Amino acid sequence: MTPLWQREPVGVVGLGLIGGSLGLDLIAAGARVHALVHRPATAERARERGLASAVSTDPAVLQGCGLVVLALPLDRLLDPDPALLAALPAAAVITDVGSVKGPVLRRWRELLLAAAAAGGGGPDPSRFVASHPMAGTARAGVEAGEIGLFRDRPWVATPVATPEASTDPAALQAVRELAEALGARWLCCDAEAHDRAVALISHLPVLVGAALLQAADAGGGETCEGADLVRALASSGFADTTRVGGGNPELGMLMARANRAALLEALGHYHRSLSSLEAMVAGEEWAPLQQSLARSALLRPDFL
Amino acid sequence: MTPLWQREPVGVVGLGLIGGSLGLDLIAAGARVHALVHRPATAERARERGLASAVSTDPAVLQGCGLVVLALPLDRLLDPDPALLAALPAAAVITDVGSVKGPVLRRWRELLLAAAAAGGGGPDPSRFVASHPMAGTARAGVEAGEIGLFRDRPWVATPVATPEASTDPAALQAVRELAEALGARWLCCDAEAHDRAVALISHLPVLVGAALLQAADAGGGETCEGADLVRALASSGFADTTRVGGGNPELGMLMARANRAALLEALGHYHRSLSSLEAMVAGEEWAPLQQSLARSALLRPDFL
Repeated sequence: MTPLWQREPVGVVGLGLIGGSLGLDLIAAGARVHALVHRPATAERARERGLASAVSTDPAVLQGCGLVVLALPLDRLLDPDPALLAALPAAAVITDVGSVKGPVLRRWRELLLAAAAAGGGGPDPSRFVASHPMAGTARAGVEAGEIGLFRDRPWVATPVATPEASTDPAALQAVRELAEALGARWLCCDAEAHDRAVALISHLPVLVGAALLQAADAGGGETCEGADLVRALASSGFADTTRVGGGNPELGMLMARANRAALLEALGHYHRSLSSLEAMVAGEEWAPLQQSLARSALLRPDFL
Repeated sequence: MTPLWQREPVGVVGLGLIGGSLGLDLIAAGARVHALVHRPATAERARERGLASAVSTDPAVLQGCGLVVLALPLDRLLDPDPALLAALPAAAVITDVGSVKGPVLRRWRELLLAAAAAGGGGPDPSRFVASHPMAGTARAGVEAGEIGLFRDRPWVATPVATPEASTDPAALQAVRELAEALGARWLCCDAEAHDRAVALISHLPVLVGAALLQAADAGGGETCEGADLVRALASSGFADTTRVGGGNPELGMLMARANRAALLEALGHYHRSLSSLEAMVAGEEWAPLQQSLARSALLRPDFL
């Protein structure tokens, strides 16, 4: 059967890095893309860049879409505009691209149940598919979208299967077909497991790198022929270690806020690992230190 | 006046990444390079690669060298072969390329004073110039040396000027001319300041990245369709943050051992920075967290 994204227009809400890249790939694949954006200037630029077949600041642009992708920043995803909610077609499959999944699932189930209870006739909660394409660059905004961003990257969905709530298999399949059409590697897992994993491999590195920059600043202060010594001597290793820690502060804060419990748990694991290494340095246990560093070196290739 | 490295043969002790790269650049610049290596197989391969004009496992190869560069791993630099010490020409300027400077300076002053007191007639302690070319790749060994490794990289010297010991200005100048001939950016600073700076920007990131790998391993363990979830989802951000933490464990241990006090001090700064960020997450202080991350983002460009 023809995939949903080919049969009916695809709605994209937000045309930043993820939404814009989705739009470019979908247009290239022959889909009709109806995009909703916040500001008229964004709509104009998105039209110039060809990010969608129709772009509007009016939520009515989503009418007739079979599949709607919410490509919003986490704060707006967790606290969406009521006009957006009201405009979601009742029959549509809805998915999001947020980097945390438990809070998004809980919030959108609540919102869609409330809309149904109020007789609003919005989409069924079972047709909300929480997902997370794990792709990105350092860029943001309407200029950031690029062709092929999702190719060979994981696209994780976190379907629900509890007595109170479950994800419609057909809705899940529709999102999978979209993801795979863009070349992504489809994965399904539990939302809480996803959030613990991204806390460890994505949100914790932000704090670790940010702290390293502040430590180098605080501990530096020696000068060398007029130049600050730590800054003069920092090499590519320091640049790499701090890349995500020196990234967009608002995104970093939003991820920490939305994934607070998992991030604190990840920090707990991190403190144990670092304290163990530090104790070896303090205790001059050089053979165990080398063994521990060797274990880290052996672990790393599995993460690449 | 013609620089020392052009007037007299340059001795290079060790032909790993740094020694081999030095040899290639110096040969290309027209210098005579006399290299001392540990193993006959290394000597043979070094000759094939053209890393020096003469290569031997016999310390006598250093005879007649006006400038000798000790390009040894930290452990062998801090505990050198007595035969090497005995073979250093009495009139030579000696420099090293170790990544810590205080311990190297103290140790070599001791060794050269002891040699002089024993009537061995080795180089004068004032003509030992501690230095640190801040260049590297992930490679090691006789195959690692490459042309142009030092170009545009800092080359830090840590001359001494105390009543008991001081560095001969002519010796310092001879090393500077060598470094600048290879395209390096010459800097002088205090040895303890150097060691504190590299603890912050080079040795601390090793522990931070190593701990992050171990935390992801310890906190992971959820599986997703058979694959380990943290490993399946780790992205380029995680790879960058852990690059130096997953590096050579022996080098990491040797740097920690030689720079222990400065590394523990750097860890103190780091704990304060990370604890502050963690307290904001725990206390749900989102505006201060965003401000703190913004400060890190502003700091980073100065380190690049």
